[in-house]
Amino acid sequence: MANMNRLFFQPHQSGQSKVAAAAQTLQNINPDVVIETHNYNITLVENFDHFLAQMTNGSLTGGKVDLVLSCVDNFEARMSINQACNELGQTWIESGVSENAVSGHIQFVSPGETACFGCAPPLIMAEGIDEKTLKREGVCAASLPTTMGIVAGFLVQNTLKFLLDFGDVSPYLGYSALLDHFPKYPMKPNPTCNDSFCLKMQKKVENKEKELIIYKPKEVEIEEEVVIENPFEIEMCDDDDGDIHAYSTLPVESSKETSVQKTSEVSLEDLMSQLGNL
Amino acid sequence: MANMNRLFFQPHQSGQSKVAAAAQTLQNINPDVVIETHNYNITLVENFDHFLAQMTNGSLTGGKVDLVLSCVDNFEARMSINQACNELGQTWIESGVSENAVSGHIQFVSPGETACFGCAPPLIMAEGIDEKTLKREGVCAASLPTTMGIVAGFLVQNTLKFLLDFGDVSPYLGYSALLDHFPKYPMKPNPTCNDSFCLKMQKKVENKEKELIIYKPKEVEIEEEVVIENPFEIEMCDDDDGDIHAYSTLPVESSKETSVQKTSEVSLEDLMSQLGNL
Repeated sequence: MANMNRLFFQPHQSGQSKVAAAAQTLQNINPDVVIETHNYNITLVENFDHFLAQMTNGSLTGGKVDLVLSCVDNFEARMSINQACNELGQTWIESGVSENAVSGHIQFVSPGETACFGCAPPLIMAEGIDEKTLKREGVCAASLPTTMGIVAGFLVQNTLKFLLDFGDVSPYLGYSALLDHFPKYPMKPNPTCNDSFCLKMQKKVENKEKELIIYKPKEVEIEEEVVIENPFEIEMCDDDDGDIHAYSTLPVESSKETSVQKTSEVSLEDLMSQLGNL
Repeated sequence: MANMNRLFFQPHQSGQSKVAAAAQTLQNINPDVVIETHNYNITLVENFDHFLAQMTNGSLTGGKVDLVLSCVDNFEARMSINQACNELGQTWIESGVSENAVSGHIQFVSPGETACFGCAPPLIMAEGIDEKTLKREGVCAASLPTTMGIVAGFLVQNTLKFLLDFGDVSPYLGYSALLDHFPKYPMKPNPTCNDSFCLKMQKKVENKEKELIIYKPKEVEIEEEVVIENPFEIEMCDDDDGDIHAYSTLPVESSKETSVQKTSEVSLEDLMSQLGNL
């Protein structure tokens, strides 16, 4: 039952694998999307090779995929995805929710340009503690669909920003539900990372053989981009129902945002850490 | 078609009212929840009276409801909810997404204790501009399910914190998708608010005749509360699948949060505005 309150699980899907249930639900929501499922343990060598092949030739046109999203539930699987992406120089976004379900994060990884998952492993892992020993007798990891939904929202929103090239993709974005606190900071790669492919990619970035995604300068014109251009070519409809204002409630904010945009990451980081140190 | 990408709309529901589609979808997700629908224009007098009656006697036990969540799409409807909640001293949470769909907010309203929706109307409304004139020819307000989902997640997460009494309910929480910026600050009531019931509630708070919700001191012990107590009494399950870590990726953060908790709103607010002014 503990898994029933996952986002996509519905009572009639009880017993189905998460992969099957997710595919079924998503297909119902949007039948026009092509969904391909591979339900296997990515940490096993033969599956890992298949995963590498899928990333290399798995796109709709038989080429390299645009982006990999990681939503796995253990460190080993994350490290496998990290290793594969470093090996192929594949951009990906890692995501997760903590065991107590009241905090989560997303981390954008551009191999060589930003920290890979191995550059800064969670403290507990760096200390060599076996994650299996963390499971407590009689206690299953909590699950709040709200936290899962918010972190999934951040993951997909940043995916849209990356693929459709609007706004800024966050290198790291955390979420602490109890206080609605959102730590956000850049993560530079670790020059002493244990992953040789990460170090190789770092060299490529150094030698400008790899295009920068996060740190290249960019101009964002919020109003024009979204409001006037109507990029989605949505037509006027008679009923104006929907959870929308016919106005923005944050006129001051939006202008502030534009200027935040023009400041260096460092000062933003400083403020965030000040905030954290309060 | 523009409404099809709302959170709950599925192709087979095309033509259904949002109220009917939402009820149907939610019932499928959780058949154990009792859902009662009233599909009407809340700004019309007879409906407004029915709305007041529902808030007064609409709970499962025939009494006062615990909380009202506002997810409407125009200023007039918001003001009607605001008026009703001020009249009854009813706690509620307002929510919305801007017309360009890249920003949104939630606002917790405890009549007399925090600003009501009329205490600080959106600038454009304060200037007496008719919101209908904001609709642009050939352009329907954009809708990003990601933004809708994140704001809805904030709304429900804060609802859980309020009803189940854990963590801190945010008085105001904004979300700017382009930069992943989250403005958060307290909103004191306006002593010159146009709503007489708001002023009446402000007096009650002043005379300590009304219990404080947001500004009463509270101790939060994140670790103990959530990790050790297992308040949801979730039993151990064999499969540990799910988008969860077997560890927290933010060990430093969580300790930081605890100390943020102990600081005054003012300094948090100062930092936030510094952040905004960058």
